Amino acid sequence: MDMDMGTEAAWPAGRFCLALHGGAGTIVCPEVEQAAWHAALQSALEAGRAVLAADGSAQAAVVATVQALEDCPLFNAGRGAVYDESGSFSLDACVMEGAHKRAGAIAGAPDVANPVLLAQAVLEEGFSVLLGGAGAQAFARAQGFAAMPAEYFATAQRYAQWQAVRGGQAASELDHDAAARLAQPLREDGKLGTVGAVARDRAGNLAAATSTGGMTNKRLGRIGDSPLVGAGCYAENGVAAISCTGTGEHFIRSVLAHQVACRMRFGGQDLSSACAAALAEMQALGGQGGLIAIDAAGRISLPFTTRGMYRAWLREGEMGGTGIF
Amino acid sequence: MDMDMGTEAAWPAGRFCLALHGGAGTIVCPEVEQAAWHAALQSALEAGRAVLAADGSAQAAVVATVQALEDCPLFNAGRGAVYDESGSFSLDACVMEGAHKRAGAIAGAPDVANPVLLAQAVLEEGFSVLLGGAGAQAFARAQGFAAMPAEYFATAQRYAQWQAVRGGQAASELDHDAAARLAQPLREDGKLGTVGAVARDRAGNLAAATSTGGMTNKRLGRIGDSPLVGAGCYAENGVAAISCTGTGEHFIRSVLAHQVACRMRFGGQDLSSACAAALAEMQALGGQGGLIAIDAAGRISLPFTTRGMYRAWLREGEMGGTGIF
Repeated sequence: MDMDMGTEAAWPAGRFCLALHGGAGTIVCPEVEQAAWHAALQSALEAGRAVLAADGSAQAAVVATVQALEDCPLFNAGRGAVYDESGSFSLDACVMEGAHKRAGAIAGAPDVANPVLLAQAVLEEGFSVLLGGAGAQAFARAQGFAAMPAEYFATAQRYAQWQAVRGGQAASELDHDAAARLAQPLREDGKLGTVGAVARDRAGNLAAATSTGGMTNKRLGRIGDSPLVGAGCYAENGVAAISCTGTGEHFIRSVLAHQVACRMRFGGQDLSSACAAALAEMQALGGQGGLIAIDAAGRISLPFTTRGMYRAWLREGEMGGTGIF
Repeated sequence: MDMDMGTEAAWPAGRFCLALHGGAGTIVCPEVEQAAWHAALQSALEAGRAVLAADGSAQAAVVATVQALEDCPLFNAGRGAVYDESGSFSLDACVMEGAHKRAGAIAGAPDVANPVLLAQAVLEEGFSVLLGGAGAQAFARAQGFAAMPAEYFATAQRYAQWQAVRGGQAASELDHDAAARLAQPLREDGKLGTVGAVARDRAGNLAAATSTGGMTNKRLGRIGDSPLVGAGCYAENGVAAISCTGTGEHFIRSVLAHQVACRMRFGGQDLSSACAAALAEMQALGGQGGLIAIDAAGRISLPFTTRGMYRAWLREGEMGGTGIF
């Protein structure tokens, strides 16, 4: 478990706080490339900071932050998403605000440039919480979201990853050896890059957002934790906002984001203890990953069980920072 | 809030317990028809009892119970499911066992006679937790589940309900008045009949299952709480097993089933207090519905905020019972 980056102290009410992640995993990031990643993380952080510094809401800030991460081809969300088993893209996202616990999410949207904006449109419409597949696509068109061509999302790197995974999986597909596949769920080429953000605004409201292209070569129709309220995304004023990344199935079974909030709300645990305990429980199920969390007092926790997690954080009046390992 | 039917006492370890629901809502069930409903509930209860009495697992028992409810055209799950907005069927189900917190779920499967069996196949395969739409259908075919014709699911009553709802919704669709639709989410013709079961077997294992046809005339791709681990279905050994029914979006935002378990696990609340508090919080968000829950000590709680909830319960050595209002 990684250190919490010295953010266990509370932060004065009325000042905003923000954190983001760009995925966790067995990160292999050569030193010469690290500067580009830090710059991308910093740039997304600035998108959220700009919203909060203009008295914007926590919801608007996490959406702006995730939108910036989706627009960056380095991360597996929006542009730069991984290929699914059909060679297409299948995008999941969720937004939740903590004041009224309103939420919107989409699963398996094939062609929206910014899945987090579509999820926010579901939230704002207020009729459904989660729309899947063709329904998400129909809603996108009805709301005026353009259908982006596959070339918008495609990157040479993701294509190479997809081909590599397909080569590796052929044997286990043939003998239906699910255990063998489960034994390596966080291969560097298969699972990196879910993105997310959590924020507390000047009014004290909390919000969380998560967005992902899922797993490389993922099975048709597979829905991971990212678009599921309580699993990969959760926000509740007075408690915490949480966004997760990792082996989605284990996060779903652990109801991980909500578990962190419940450990605090009902068990009186502090933020970092709650995060560590929930992650340890998920790890005991065989999973790996990390999360970012902000509590009502402005504490920030960024723990992960993997070699690294792309992440960044700031609090109003502080420099903030970015991290990979 | 309804009474808990006098099941607040613990039940000896080594003896099984079982409860089921057939949906909550503004039930209008003429006295002359009530006997048929009680008989259907009793029959499903016996299906689960037979499994548990033969030393079967809690998981096998909740699946057998829900399968019986799916096979009965009175309930909105499997045969007798409601029509979606395209005039088709869109079936959701989830199974979770509490020993290892394994879970399987499907959302938007169009043609499987027993969605709960398909959800169990997802659980047993162990690779994914939640499969949606075309992915659920492809998995069904790969697992040998027959594609049932629409006539298998169709009932004259559901068709009439669908036509009635479509007539009523035309105006609100035209002016996009989501608020008007949200104001009447539990219309008797629109929301009855999600089914579910919870059980404790003789070995002390807990399990829960939920299955539904969703809301009458539901929007393409809308995923409610039923197939979502933590929202409409949750099981954790040593704590509780819970299955929910009601206005799905409010149950998702409340992460209701998991919230009940967390109130007990981290807050030390007893089963009926935890259920009542979680339902009250969901109601404060504007929702309605009910749940069934069994704790590790064999207590049973069957609360609902609506006029009625079809339900049944038994404990090894007891008569058990069925209820509507």
